[in-house]
Amino acid sequence: MSGSSRAALLPRTFEDAPQRATPVSQKPKQPKVEPRLLRGFRDILPEDLIARDRMIGKVREVFEAHGFAPLATPALEPLDVLGRTDLEDDSGTGGGSIFRVVDPDEPGAFYGMRFDMTVPLARVVSQYPDLPRPFRRYAVGPVYRVDKPGPGRFREFLQFDLDIVGSEKMEADAEIVSCMVETLQALGLERFKVRVNNRKILSGALEFAGVPDEQREAKVGGRSVTYDVRLETLRSLDKFDRVGFDGIAELLGGGRRDETGDFKFGVGLADGCIEKLLAFLRVPNRARAESLEALRALMGGNALASEGIAELAEIDAVLSALGVADAHAAFDMTIVRGLAYYTGPVFEAVLLDAPEFGSVFSGGRYDGLVQRFQSAEIPAVGASVGVDRLLVALQHLKLVEKRSSPTEVLITVMDPSQRNQYLAMAAELRRAGIATEVFLGGRNFGKQLKYADRLGIPIALIAGGDEFARGEVALKDLWAGREISKQLASFEEWRENPTQVTVARARLIDEVRAMRERQRHFEQKLRSTQG
Amino acid sequence: MSGSSRAALLPRTFEDAPQRATPVSQKPKQPKVEPRLLRGFRDILPEDLIARDRMIGKVREVFEAHGFAPLATPALEPLDVLGRTDLEDDSGTGGGSIFRVVDPDEPGAFYGMRFDMTVPLARVVSQYPDLPRPFRRYAVGPVYRVDKPGPGRFREFLQFDLDIVGSEKMEADAEIVSCMVETLQALGLERFKVRVNNRKILSGALEFAGVPDEQREAKVGGRSVTYDVRLETLRSLDKFDRVGFDGIAELLGGGRRDETGDFKFGVGLADGCIEKLLAFLRVPNRARAESLEALRALMGGNALASEGIAELAEIDAVLSALGVADAHAAFDMTIVRGLAYYTGPVFEAVLLDAPEFGSVFSGGRYDGLVQRFQSAEIPAVGASVGVDRLLVALQHLKLVEKRSSPTEVLITVMDPSQRNQYLAMAAELRRAGIATEVFLGGRNFGKQLKYADRLGIPIALIAGGDEFARGEVALKDLWAGREISKQLASFEEWRENPTQVTVARARLIDEVRAMRERQRHFEQKLRSTQG
Repeated sequence: MSGSSRAALLPRTFEDAPQRATPVSQKPKQPKVEPRLLRGFRDILPEDLIARDRMIGKVREVFEAHGFAPLATPALEPLDVLGRTDLEDDSGTGGGSIFRVVDPDEPGAFYGMRFDMTVPLARVVSQYPDLPRPFRRYAVGPVYRVDKPGPGRFREFLQFDLDIVGSEKMEADAEIVSCMVETLQALGLERFKVRVNNRKILSGALEFAGVPDEQREAKVGGRSVTYDVRLETLRSLDKFDRVGFDGIAELLGGGRRDETGDFKFGVGLADGCIEKLLAFLRVPNRARAESLEALRALMGGNALASEGIAELAEIDAVLSALGVADAHAAFDMTIVRGLAYYTGPVFEAVLLDAPEFGSVFSGGRYDGLVQRFQSAEIPAVGASVGVDRLLVALQHLKLVEKRSSPTEVLITVMDPSQRNQYLAMAAELRRAGIATEVFLGGRNFGKQLKYADRLGIPIALIAGGDEFARGEVALKDLWAGREISKQLASFEEWRENPTQVTVARARLIDEVRAMRERQRHFEQKLRSTQG
Repeated sequence: MSGSSRAALLPRTFEDAPQRATPVSQKPKQPKVEPRLLRGFRDILPEDLIARDRMIGKVREVFEAHGFAPLATPALEPLDVLGRTDLEDDSGTGGGSIFRVVDPDEPGAFYGMRFDMTVPLARVVSQYPDLPRPFRRYAVGPVYRVDKPGPGRFREFLQFDLDIVGSEKMEADAEIVSCMVETLQALGLERFKVRVNNRKILSGALEFAGVPDEQREAKVGGRSVTYDVRLETLRSLDKFDRVGFDGIAELLGGGRRDETGDFKFGVGLADGCIEKLLAFLRVPNRARAESLEALRALMGGNALASEGIAELAEIDAVLSALGVADAHAAFDMTIVRGLAYYTGPVFEAVLLDAPEFGSVFSGGRYDGLVQRFQSAEIPAVGASVGVDRLLVALQHLKLVEKRSSPTEVLITVMDPSQRNQYLAMAAELRRAGIATEVFLGGRNFGKQLKYADRLGIPIALIAGGDEFARGEVALKDLWAGREISKQLASFEEWRENPTQVTVARARLIDEVRAMRERQRHFEQKLRSTQG
């Protein structure tokens, strides 16, 4: 739609757009309402949101450098587009059920709130058949699930996906993996690994090991249950990270009693079969070439496995050409992921210095994308950032600044009669790209510094009439003031650094920049000594 | 909450966070669903979203340079927190009514979807009493209103607010105005004006002009209606931009028949009263000092007006100290805005080259912020970006690039056997910060260039075995290829520019940068000749 043709519509159609809030809060006589959140929902206050925004910004840069374009879809969709019943019937989604919104136009009817970004992507791909293909898109936004709320588990959370739609080539899968690697590097991480497997190899391994394709009966707590042997085998393999080789052997065999004393019934496979599966899990997971060699030697005879191995070989070739090191992307046969969902390669990224956070970024190839909307299949591959856990991991690893304000310099108000001087400095600093505010609260000087401390503002500018008369201002290094109590004192080179310096007003910008650089320098040192 | 203490929770609580979509689309046998949007909702495809994201990014930078911190609140809130009934009863909000969400825990109960960012801000300020004050925050996110959908009018739209909570000082108001000015400048606008008025002066003007504070009866289309004379007077003044001085005189007097022939009944004020109001509207609106002088001369005798004039004088002093020119921020007595909502200064920004878009950024001071939640008043001042209309205006003024992809270089695949060369160049370009993709679709070369054209990718890299053997690659200037059809040919200096150059592989990065710079240079020229 051209700007001008839209412009014509504007006076009428956009009339209300920039209006602010309704007069609701103006009604004087109403009883007070308790300010509170809904269960399972949260506010993200500046301290966490500044860190999250910075993280998201860096991730976007990497995605866009790889040619992924942003796409936004509504939070509300028709219920059948989301596939409500399926979701509600399906307990294996980990997604709970869909939030329903009252349809304002049709009594008794409902809308649904999106529970992920993939179904909307499928809708868009089906609805706009002439979108260019391959379609590289990323999407970041909140999704909603009626889930049992708990600490760290919310009913509204941010989903951050990237996908390539319309290419069956393994280059696409490799692009996603390389994007995952470069994203984690851009976030300052070095010791991480993207572990890659292939569902075809997993299925081939079941054949190769002779896992029977049948239903069986088992007695669980007195009552008998039917289970699919192959599905249950995959579910057991998926527990490798938690239970290790011996645990897997028990789960595949007669069953396992965990630390808590709970007993998990076993799949009941024959010993020879279990041996073969363990050999499969033991395929080396360091150098990609080495993994491929071992896989060919072990399962080259199996057609399905060979197909999967060839795909991994293709991915290895592309990753190598892109310069992705074995240390950052490796093949690992212990990765299962999304049983019902993925159809080819699967990926998951783990942080070697914070394994307790599990997978922080994961995905794979899936061909079911548009099945809900059309018969013609469209190949797709993608991955999701685990925004919440990745952010917490970065905070845990001290890779994000903890700030409650973007302000770098707080100009304190010593002498209100000098206001214009304060304002002029603020304008000057801002023009130089240095976030600055002049304190707008009361006069009490202690309160002004306390305010800066509360917000984690690193520098306070202090000046009154005398200083201005001398053409000087004082810069107080609040960051050091806070940190010095910790280890700063231990650095030889620190001791020469005064936490307050008097500088020439004319050199304000340079002096502020110098102090910020010094702060970042020591922040680095502190991090590396802690790490 | 410290990273480590949260880390402890993770294995359990974050288990599902990074999971991708549910297996919904895997169910094979279900009937196909029609891919479609709900009425009043829209997808934002890359072409528009890339432009919007860039705009939002620039706005954020300015807000953060002024020390505003981001705050995120849920899209869903308790209905009474949003004040459902008030909103539904009140037709003057322009906001329609609230979307209701089925409460999954309590049959028959509902949540509400936020309809703006100000009520959630009020909740946060009341719920976290120890937030630092003054609290400078910005918030950007979708809001929802059950409104009659129409072209350009949606039920989900982006709200982008900045507010300073907890300061009654006029410095705060001036900070908001300066933020508005610098934001519009950062977006490449020069010819715009932030028009500032003060509700106190408006009210004072009504007293000064002797507008009776009473209810009156009028016959409208046969039936008689009661109206508040002062409110109706303000409503009339608010129409100044559309009807001008003569129209205002008619509306305040006996009534006005517009172009369409519709008759709007008049407020019925006495001629002397109308004269005084017109004199008020005629207060000069160029130099701020001049406006203040004229206001003092005209209404200095009125206490309420004088209070408002003193506030504007204060704002003028701060704006001048911040270096905000009269051309960008002026006082204008014809601005009314948000009758029921604002209590002091009010602001609105208009684009002088695109006045048809109306106010693209507006706000003011309001003291009713937390009335819904507590008795203690908290002063607040803020403004909202009219995201949709501002974006359309920028597109109309050709101030945003029209791109469907962030990709700057498409590496075409002439010879699949050279894939590793292509991939290595992609990695090299990306490392240099140049968004690049290797074509992942079919081999057909024409299709590859068509793909680049569809996406508005500015450069195609073309190379096969021979070129690589010679250590060369070809760069095709697709941007010029598209633009040349327009006016490029008219530039003398353009004619020497070939649209395809063969360059040394070793100088790839420099050559790409050079071509991008040339493209931007001519893009500028085209814009300035069109503007």
